[in-house]
Amino acid sequence: MWKPDRSSKKPIYQQITDEMDRRIVYGEYPPGSFLPSERKLAEQLEVNRSTIVQAYEELRAKGIVESSAGNGTMVSKHMWEIHPSLTPNWRKYVDGGTFAPNLPFIRRVREVLREHESMVDFASGELSTDLFPNTAIQQLLREVPFEAHLGYDDPQGYLPLRESLATFLETHLDIRTTASSVLITSGSQQSLYLITQCLLTPGDAVAIEDPSYCYSLPMFQSAGLRLFRLPVYSDGMNPEDIRSLFRQHRIRMLFLNPNYQNPTGSILHPSKRSLLLNIAAELGIPIVEDDPFSLTSFDHQPPSNLKSIDTHSSVLYVGSLSKIAASGLRIGWLVAPQSVVKRLADARQQMDFGLSIVPQWLAHQFLATGLFDQHIHFLQDALAHKQALMIRALQQELQDLISFTPSYGGLNLWCKLEQPVDEFKLLEEAIKRGVVFMPGNVFGSEQGRIRLSYARPAIEDIGPGIIKFAQAYRSLLRG
Amino acid sequence: MWKPDRSSKKPIYQQITDEMDRRIVYGEYPPGSFLPSERKLAEQLEVNRSTIVQAYEELRAKGIVESSAGNGTMVSKHMWEIHPSLTPNWRKYVDGGTFAPNLPFIRRVREVLREHESMVDFASGELSTDLFPNTAIQQLLREVPFEAHLGYDDPQGYLPLRESLATFLETHLDIRTTASSVLITSGSQQSLYLITQCLLTPGDAVAIEDPSYCYSLPMFQSAGLRLFRLPVYSDGMNPEDIRSLFRQHRIRMLFLNPNYQNPTGSILHPSKRSLLLNIAAELGIPIVEDDPFSLTSFDHQPPSNLKSIDTHSSVLYVGSLSKIAASGLRIGWLVAPQSVVKRLADARQQMDFGLSIVPQWLAHQFLATGLFDQHIHFLQDALAHKQALMIRALQQELQDLISFTPSYGGLNLWCKLEQPVDEFKLLEEAIKRGVVFMPGNVFGSEQGRIRLSYARPAIEDIGPGIIKFAQAYRSLLRG
Repeated sequence: MWKPDRSSKKPIYQQITDEMDRRIVYGEYPPGSFLPSERKLAEQLEVNRSTIVQAYEELRAKGIVESSAGNGTMVSKHMWEIHPSLTPNWRKYVDGGTFAPNLPFIRRVREVLREHESMVDFASGELSTDLFPNTAIQQLLREVPFEAHLGYDDPQGYLPLRESLATFLETHLDIRTTASSVLITSGSQQSLYLITQCLLTPGDAVAIEDPSYCYSLPMFQSAGLRLFRLPVYSDGMNPEDIRSLFRQHRIRMLFLNPNYQNPTGSILHPSKRSLLLNIAAELGIPIVEDDPFSLTSFDHQPPSNLKSIDTHSSVLYVGSLSKIAASGLRIGWLVAPQSVVKRLADARQQMDFGLSIVPQWLAHQFLATGLFDQHIHFLQDALAHKQALMIRALQQELQDLISFTPSYGGLNLWCKLEQPVDEFKLLEEAIKRGVVFMPGNVFGSEQGRIRLSYARPAIEDIGPGIIKFAQAYRSLLRG
Repeated sequence: MWKPDRSSKKPIYQQITDEMDRRIVYGEYPPGSFLPSERKLAEQLEVNRSTIVQAYEELRAKGIVESSAGNGTMVSKHMWEIHPSLTPNWRKYVDGGTFAPNLPFIRRVREVLREHESMVDFASGELSTDLFPNTAIQQLLREVPFEAHLGYDDPQGYLPLRESLATFLETHLDIRTTASSVLITSGSQQSLYLITQCLLTPGDAVAIEDPSYCYSLPMFQSAGLRLFRLPVYSDGMNPEDIRSLFRQHRIRMLFLNPNYQNPTGSILHPSKRSLLLNIAAELGIPIVEDDPFSLTSFDHQPPSNLKSIDTHSSVLYVGSLSKIAASGLRIGWLVAPQSVVKRLADARQQMDFGLSIVPQWLAHQFLATGLFDQHIHFLQDALAHKQALMIRALQQELQDLISFTPSYGGLNLWCKLEQPVDEFKLLEEAIKRGVVFMPGNVFGSEQGRIRLSYARPAIEDIGPGIIKFAQAYRSLLRG
């Protein structure tokens, strides 16, 4: 991103004037659109707000922008002799479209994280940089000659990767499959997107866990689905709840995350699993098993999964490397009956023409060599350690004000605020002190719950981050 | 893909029986679903059909499958003591969904190409393997240390790539932009998909060139758009046609491919360009400029583009590396006003959580070093040579039976059959002789047109491929 050059002789405000002028001329800000607010641009460029005021003043003097009382700084419609109406009304286009935007809470958190690098991040359910297999990836890129074909690939994904995945799934997760039943996707997100777009129709009813990650996905809303709740208990959802939902709403699909459920961390009790599969099969309802976390298990023994005991072929199994290796690779997979895989692969062609060959080749090398096995042991131990640090800090700082059940895997600690406070206010207080988390609201949860992810922050930031969070919490109790 | 082991002592039919049994048990073919037809599986596994018949007979004897008269071989519903209704009706799910499948013509061609490796491919509008920058990519992977962050990336794409693209666009195409106005996508396909999903609403009218690549995109249908035609002449579409379409249908967006238009190869005449931009701005209609081919220009001088003279900010500029470097990298870009880029980036997060960092890093290295410049000169010369070879062969084999206008860039030759024949029959006759092409129908064209791509086949296959094609064409004239 462009930043002013502090060593230049040209004054900073003048550099900013020139840059904004250039962006306007280049069409980044069309006539009639608004420039970023003075406050926001000042934050982005790391300058005083007064510098921006001066730069905008200069643009105004040149007639390039005009102030529109209360609305900010608008690019003049009279530039280049353009008649006001002679340009697309981009705002109208941007506000249209069928695709629902992200939830405001999530956008707020992302924006804060983008703008403040020093923020302690308990919000993002992802790994910290040091937990990625950086050395292994660099080594593979340097040492293994890249010989894959650089043209369009098989719509289902790179065959050698699908083959190494079939072996990987059997070895690590007891899932037996073949390369023909595997679709390579750009992570679990794309698997879920393809399922909602291709196998369901607007108006269809689906059941999701409550609370769950799915509530934070506008993709369900974009697909026009009606969502119904399956409450999650400490031993997971209750299979019998499916019957009543089916009777009332003709549920057409179940979205479940049975292992280290996001956000609660719970595991669906083994005794409930056959019952769940039998009820789903009896009612003819497919189950989407979202399983990003099984291989994070702290005791090196992943819990069993539904797919491995799915004799009815009811389960669409969704996994990825994002939470167990590196999210930036964008490699996920779906294991499903072949007709489903073919249908989804065909639709995906229309959306993005398939995935890049390079990360697929890399993921194949990573899984097929022993590098993954070394990595996953290291990761499991590191996550267990980070959770322990977080728990210790919470106990020290907030004793009886917060409660939680430690998990045996996953990236998150699901917490109950014993003195309920407004989650949105708490988030803002926390941001002021340099720490972010996810309000339970994002997961469709009742008030007074939050998700603290211990995977993302650096080890040395966990304790200080919890101290800041505790200060934010206590400030609202005093208030 | 699994193939029988011909060196094994176990009979081939027995190996196939065991493999299909395994696939059924693994859930690839659920109870009640159909196995591939005997003919199709025989082709896939490269064995005699009688071997498959024997294998299916064996599965039937074991009670694993049953014959369903006329419908093929169905996996038994009584396996594992399952009551017939006790499993999802996958066929119903697969046939549902809002996402339209690919056109049958296109699926037919893809299937043929997948199953017969020796087919001469005049159908795929893509580069042959030897035209990719294979050595440059291998060199970059081996020699440049990979140091990019392996976590989730900026929703707009890898910043160093957006910066090198801004320079690339200015240097090669005279398009002035900044990193903030660039969205990195998984190729042009994803740019178009995001535009149709996020900026348009079902029922909206859009204008597309006739003939055009857009007709082959079920994505327009999936987005519920109404398509209206702008006829393409030898000097491109006529801007004045937009006015009448707007009056009649309130056109909300124009999709144009002004340079080396696909499939006609025509260039929108320079004298029409300002008029086009003025009319679009006057009516407030945004233009999507799809520009995959400009840099293939045989004389090393790319034609000018709309975006470089777009003073109204009406143009969404869509480009990619697919046709000028390697489609398998899946790197494309959209240049647009910042509010549009932000909206599309936000939606893309919901679909696939963004692109893999590895190909983005690689594309950045490729563009930022001199490697791209060396490559593009080589490519331009190679394409000119391949077109010349195709033209010579067509003139030799089909003299007055076919006509076309040579293009000065792009990958395709748009041909008129001077003795009209049924395109579908012609395609089937051609397939029988080992060659495929794209019927004009796929591009919404009138009868008697075909697209021959010279970029994809190997140099030594162009002449022999045209001979086979000529035989197929003549066989229908005699018939």
